[in-house]
Amino acid sequence: MQDREISQAVIGRLPRYYRYLRDLKEAGKERISSQELSSIMKVTASQIRQDFNNFGGFGQQGYGYNTEYLYEEIGKILGLDQHHSMVLVGAGNLGQALVHYFVNKQNGFDFLCAFDIDPKLFGQTIGTVPIRPLEELRTFVDDNRIDIVVLTVPKSEAEGIAQTLADSNIRAIWNFAHVDLDLPKHIQVENVHLQDSLMKLSYSIHKYEN
Amino acid sequence: MQDREISQAVIGRLPRYYRYLRDLKEAGKERISSQELSSIMKVTASQIRQDFNNFGGFGQQGYGYNTEYLYEEIGKILGLDQHHSMVLVGAGNLGQALVHYFVNKQNGFDFLCAFDIDPKLFGQTIGTVPIRPLEELRTFVDDNRIDIVVLTVPKSEAEGIAQTLADSNIRAIWNFAHVDLDLPKHIQVENVHLQDSLMKLSYSIHKYEN
Repeated sequence: MQDREISQAVIGRLPRYYRYLRDLKEAGKERISSQELSSIMKVTASQIRQDFNNFGGFGQQGYGYNTEYLYEEIGKILGLDQHHSMVLVGAGNLGQALVHYFVNKQNGFDFLCAFDIDPKLFGQTIGTVPIRPLEELRTFVDDNRIDIVVLTVPKSEAEGIAQTLADSNIRAIWNFAHVDLDLPKHIQVENVHLQDSLMKLSYSIHKYEN
Repeated sequence: MQDREISQAVIGRLPRYYRYLRDLKEAGKERISSQELSSIMKVTASQIRQDFNNFGGFGQQGYGYNTEYLYEEIGKILGLDQHHSMVLVGAGNLGQALVHYFVNKQNGFDFLCAFDIDPKLFGQTIGTVPIRPLEELRTFVDDNRIDIVVLTVPKSEAEGIAQTLADSNIRAIWNFAHVDLDLPKHIQVENVHLQDSLMKLSYSIHKYEN
């Protein structure tokens, strides 16, 4: 199914489809045409059909899509039918907020542990997630088959931690540190650079002004 | 200077240039060629020159760029030489983390106030930023010439708040709510959809596996 290379642009749109389809499903909408989806999502019906054709199409044109089937299938493509074990590295404000944000969501993303360098935090918990010394990170990751490391440490520490994990079996780093990480190809990286995002916002404000 | 339409892709790369140039400047590097920048940033020198040509070029080829000048100029394009007054709407874990993240950074982005619907929070502060009742938001925004509203509320509340602000003089919403906001064109929106980002990461893990 995924033999062809799917473009980053298409992949970037999948979570948004998933989000809208969840709302439609929860609202009891059983079938939806690409025209209806187009009008709700403000993208063209032709783009929706093209996007879905990357994955086999999902249903007959004219008759519309089965909302729940489409939601489930896009979820599978995104790997959301799988369980993901996660750890947090950096138990500061942002890290703690992320754990709270995802705990109890029952979405298959589970924080098992958090790590920090601050001894005052050792033995404390974020919700139910324990905080341990950073030096235990690598052993914990190896012993517990961790999939995703969520990195919310200062820039100066991020690269050292990435190096510690470079030859581990983790599959991905969700990187909030303000630095681009250099990692082997088997470790996927998704960056959330909050300052970059705010700078883009600032640009669009001032551009609009001109 | 910005008469031509600059592509979103170029704009999206500006904060990253800015970040690298700050590091180079802080490391005492006075001049840098597009080749050197290319090797550090892992983009082609030709792309760097093309990107910079959108803004007049910034310096002579061959001789390289003056690092500090380039840093300052890109900062100006991004509007970072301006002051931005901000308020937070939604003083939960994520919102509080964002305030802590930006307070004391002296980067021109200032949180003046936070708003929430939870009476237990009224009168409390996040660092030095006071928390007030949500119903005071619109008056506060109008009285204090707020530029940016940072929205960290549940999806169900986000649209109502956006409507409250639609005819105000705010210039932008930095939206962390898991919903696409429908706003008039004079209000810029930059979305940070954390769940979408995690879904993309999940996709790339499972795609790599296949």
